[in-house]
Amino acid sequence: MPGRILVVDDLATNRIMMKVHLADAHYDVLQAAGGRAALDIARREAPDLILLDMMMPDLDGISVCERLRADPATAEIPIIIVTAATDARSRLRALAAGADDFLSRPLDELILLARVRSLLRARETAQELALRDGTERLLGFSEPAQGFAPPGRIALVAARAETAAGWQAALAGRLTDRIVPMTRAEALSPDPGHAVPDLFVIEGDLGGPGGGLRLLTELRSRSETRHAAVLIVLPPTARETAAMALDLGANDLMTAPLDGAELALRLKAQMARKRQADRLRDTLRDGLRMAATDPLTGLFNRRYALPHLARIAERADRTGRRFAVLLLDLDRFKAVNDRHGHAAGDAVLVAVAQRLRDNLRAVDLVARFGGEEFLVALPDTDATAACAAAERLRRVIGAAPVALPGGGDLQVSASIGVAMGGAEAGTVSALIEAADAALYRAKSAGRDRVDGPATD
Amino acid sequence: MPGRILVVDDLATNRIMMKVHLADAHYDVLQAAGGRAALDIARREAPDLILLDMMMPDLDGISVCERLRADPATAEIPIIIVTAATDARSRLRALAAGADDFLSRPLDELILLARVRSLLRARETAQELALRDGTERLLGFSEPAQGFAPPGRIALVAARAETAAGWQAALAGRLTDRIVPMTRAEALSPDPGHAVPDLFVIEGDLGGPGGGLRLLTELRSRSETRHAAVLIVLPPTARETAAMALDLGANDLMTAPLDGAELALRLKAQMARKRQADRLRDTLRDGLRMAATDPLTGLFNRRYALPHLARIAERADRTGRRFAVLLLDLDRFKAVNDRHGHAAGDAVLVAVAQRLRDNLRAVDLVARFGGEEFLVALPDTDATAACAAAERLRRVIGAAPVALPGGGDLQVSASIGVAMGGAEAGTVSALIEAADAALYRAKSAGRDRVDGPATD
Repeated sequence: MPGRILVVDDLATNRIMMKVHLADAHYDVLQAAGGRAALDIARREAPDLILLDMMMPDLDGISVCERLRADPATAEIPIIIVTAATDARSRLRALAAGADDFLSRPLDELILLARVRSLLRARETAQELALRDGTERLLGFSEPAQGFAPPGRIALVAARAETAAGWQAALAGRLTDRIVPMTRAEALSPDPGHAVPDLFVIEGDLGGPGGGLRLLTELRSRSETRHAAVLIVLPPTARETAAMALDLGANDLMTAPLDGAELALRLKAQMARKRQADRLRDTLRDGLRMAATDPLTGLFNRRYALPHLARIAERADRTGRRFAVLLLDLDRFKAVNDRHGHAAGDAVLVAVAQRLRDNLRAVDLVARFGGEEFLVALPDTDATAACAAAERLRRVIGAAPVALPGGGDLQVSASIGVAMGGAEAGTVSALIEAADAALYRAKSAGRDRVDGPATD
Repeated sequence: MPGRILVVDDLATNRIMMKVHLADAHYDVLQAAGGRAALDIARREAPDLILLDMMMPDLDGISVCERLRADPATAEIPIIIVTAATDARSRLRALAAGADDFLSRPLDELILLARVRSLLRARETAQELALRDGTERLLGFSEPAQGFAPPGRIALVAARAETAAGWQAALAGRLTDRIVPMTRAEALSPDPGHAVPDLFVIEGDLGGPGGGLRLLTELRSRSETRHAAVLIVLPPTARETAAMALDLGANDLMTAPLDGAELALRLKAQMARKRQADRLRDTLRDGLRMAATDPLTGLFNRRYALPHLARIAERADRTGRRFAVLLLDLDRFKAVNDRHGHAAGDAVLVAVAQRLRDNLRAVDLVARFGGEEFLVALPDTDATAACAAAERLRRVIGAAPVALPGGGDLQVSASIGVAMGGAEAGTVSALIEAADAALYRAKSAGRDRVDGPATD
């Protein structure tokens, strides 16, 4: 489905002209002839973007914008306010009301469409991070960031030091963020002693025409700065460069000379968006890590060990190489909990997990499989090596007593069952059953020992 | 840290010239004077990109490329093969060996740097999806896609129908994917009856100079096509447009007239990359969903219910509105398991979860909190409404017997404790304790009933 854009204007001729521009780029266009109708349609149709006239008899664009932002159902829809006014006060009011941008009539189609593309792209990225599937609600993705945010870092990159100093003076007292003038070289080779900037303000003609755009593309190709927000400063006449800057991934544009109040408002909006996106990325990462790991030991959990084991088996089928599965169970663990308490039991599990981790290769899988049971998978391993590895793990676990949280320490031991996968071996669950049977034999034979296949 | 690029060439003058180009863009440059040294350095230093000379006395570039691709430690590093040769056979050999691109000497600095940026950007995106933190190994992110991949869909978009037909003829018999000539309008308004293309081949001068680049930016701003791979076809002389296309997000370039064999190789590589990225996005999404939900009932799990409840409480603090927490416990559930077996117990849990879901608002939270215990949170709800909701849920659960998997059915009931949050209420854990106390009172008073705060 193409992007759906709501055009709000009380004058039919304005709406028609806008529709012509947008239809050529194959957007679906919805129309509203007034502010109240706009609120209704926005809530009902959830358009991807709203082009909003500033002056309307029933409810002006600023009020519509404020109401859209206050309603959770419409708060995230990008809004461009359009008007014949060109004065700084109108621009500031529009931005302060939460508009993403402000365009003056007569509209420049090139700039209009580049802005539309840029805002739609940003919205898609944000929605993709938020997963669109309901998970976000539970994970709190749709909640605004709460509480204290530390000051951000804003880099000002201009061809001449005086230009950057002028921008810095214009921002004085308007932001709590740290503002740092920088050369192009400094922007590309950040000082390891400082945080990488969250936001760059870049002069378009940096070291030659289009140099600012080249810096933008270079920042976007580097891991540290690829998610930084970038605002490009251009002369008022540079309309093609302006459209190109947006298509190259600039988050916002302003024309020189810069108005300090407007720059501050735009930077605040970009900083808030950058922070929210950073938070979403962190949440995604943490969520996945949580899903895969056992909180006590930090080892992978059973839920993730099983599919991983299936992939090891698939690969073994492909390569013809063998792999081993070890099931390891701590001996008489129930007695540890009963006699020394659960904190002691937890300390033993954590210590054993650490000893396993320290004595396996990076390619091996080690997971907490159940209460006091661990699963280890050793890819590209034959039976002799697997039994030797199991014996080594058994020895390491019993090598030194575990210090208990209440003082004192405790000698522990483990029984280990080994089974071989790959080649003619059966399914993953048959393999785990075989390892479990070997573990049972090891327990029956007196514990603290390894049982497994005959080594050939 | 800036990007680190390994330059491999047996001629020192070539290495120095390359280093000058790259240093101006502030990349860190590593050097290797031969193929074997390149393999060592690539493995040891894990550079972000490799520029590889084709002809070297000890080990030629093609062999180096093949070995880098075969070693998991270096398989994902982008490689550009550089040579004086310009013949089609050399290009095909380089691409077939796994090179991402092939550049002929004398090198065009503009194109070289745009390619470098483009490949580094693609690598960053792939690595970000794979999380870079070890989780990917367990989640199988680093495994190549296995098994049968259904044919993809490739759109050919050219100004004249004959051009697209010529490309299609050149590809005949070389790919298993569905190949579809398309107009610009069709590319932007995909037919809902067909799958959206995975890959677009677009003529640079589509409906006027740079029209292909504009279509590229439009595809990138639309949700259905933003992750599609795009290959732009340009005249050999269009070097500035070529660099711009890469910076605008084209995944690959070719010069007209198109060589069918080379086009097929490039499209195959792009299709494989697109598929892998799609798979990573799906895995991320599934992983998060799994992390948040209880596999049996599909309800959110306790781990995710608690932070969500904390956010509901925060919002209530902010808005001054109240919210309710319900703890719901099935009556005599142990007897269900004991008498009818675990499959029957599971069926009861699933049915109750469904009844809860069907009788709550979209903004409400419902989670499986423990074995047979459910937590429901109702934002923006006063005590009267909360008790009425609890009473409704109690009635719905007992309204009809649950069908058992072994045949027959079973009448179930639940006890519910209600506690109010917001305003002067305490912490989330105090709130859960209050709901738990109310639940205990409901159980003590004979079960199948609601207990809660006095409704005011």
